[in-house]
Amino acid sequence: MHLTKSDIEHMERKKRLNIINSVSGIKPANLIGTKSKDGQTNVAIFSSVLHLGSNPALLGFITRPTGEVPRHTYENIKETGYYTINHIPTAIADKAHYTSAKVDRDTSEFEQCGLTEEYINGFQAPFVKECHLKIGLKLVDELPIQVNDTIMIIGEIEELIIPDASVDDKGYIDLSLFNTAGISGLNTYYSLAPVASFPYARPNEIPDFGT
Amino acid sequence: MHLTKSDIEHMERKKRLNIINSVSGIKPANLIGTKSKDGQTNVAIFSSVLHLGSNPALLGFITRPTGEVPRHTYENIKETGYYTINHIPTAIADKAHYTSAKVDRDTSEFEQCGLTEEYINGFQAPFVKECHLKIGLKLVDELPIQVNDTIMIIGEIEELIIPDASVDDKGYIDLSLFNTAGISGLNTYYSLAPVASFPYARPNEIPDFGT
Repeated sequence: MHLTKSDIEHMERKKRLNIINSVSGIKPANLIGTKSKDGQTNVAIFSSVLHLGSNPALLGFITRPTGEVPRHTYENIKETGYYTINHIPTAIADKAHYTSAKVDRDTSEFEQCGLTEEYINGFQAPFVKECHLKIGLKLVDELPIQVNDTIMIIGEIEELIIPDASVDDKGYIDLSLFNTAGISGLNTYYSLAPVASFPYARPNEIPDFGT
Repeated sequence: MHLTKSDIEHMERKKRLNIINSVSGIKPANLIGTKSKDGQTNVAIFSSVLHLGSNPALLGFITRPTGEVPRHTYENIKETGYYTINHIPTAIADKAHYTSAKVDRDTSEFEQCGLTEEYINGFQAPFVKECHLKIGLKLVDELPIQVNDTIMIIGEIEELIIPDASVDDKGYIDLSLFNTAGISGLNTYYSLAPVASFPYARPNEIPDFGT
């Protein structure tokens, strides 16, 4: 199948959404947990979490600003400055998926979707108990992406919980040992299996690939 | 394992790099193909490609600006305005990985790593023949991320090649049918297997999760 820019523009909207949401490759499956300043908790699925740097340890994610549709995650982060990012294990993909339904602000998706709030080390925002790798972040910047009216939220890692058995001496983490899921498109969840690992690539150590 | 911000700051540099590069979850494995205005081709692995929007169809990726270290991909995109993004199949993870070695600008990683340039539909930048899902993009914006001196390159999709058998009527693409890889950390490659798919989540159609 070969589509040009014009084919994409003239495609039926839902089909375009499904196709274009799949072409970046596999996306990470995370739940973002927040709490409003009035104490109302919220949890929502995001597939746009991105590594930005390791020193300081920064992660980004993309959201739309609050406009016609309220964006509780964004509002809570702006109000309090704190949020959590939690890897979704494949076993709770169904619960995690339904956090994307637009419910009233006074309904917590934790309760609605059978997920459990967890508070660790006095961190203000709720972690998700059913997740095994969990990160507490502090908002550090908000970057408008003008070409399509989205925002990149940037946070620094303040708390990091990783299952012991999945980390080796060098700091390599095997995501498959705690069943972290990937997402393709808007609604398909994948399991992950490690297949290969290679050393840091130095110019004088490139294998002979028969060229 | 529970690490605080201070633990992360005081960790040995390489271990921190490995850990923090893994905590965002699975990352997409893509090769970005470019050509300088003088005709020198380049191909490099990136794990930061991100879906930004489907209408217009926009993808982003993160790079460092050219400073002490030359960034051939970035320089070529700035010079010509065009580039390709190609899904890495697990079978060529080794070749793809070694494109990250810093070679001279007059050496093409295509040749160095046993990958094949492919030109499609008159598109200016080289696709990677060994990849099955391939995207031709035009640069539309460049967004400085000041907190850690990186840049998000934003491009619009102009050409999109997807294996026929992997797309269904609704536009769902099964990434496992052409063995698209995921990456965790800096050097571990994962295979993907679909495990579940759920409909668009409407508030009145949330399953009873026993709460």
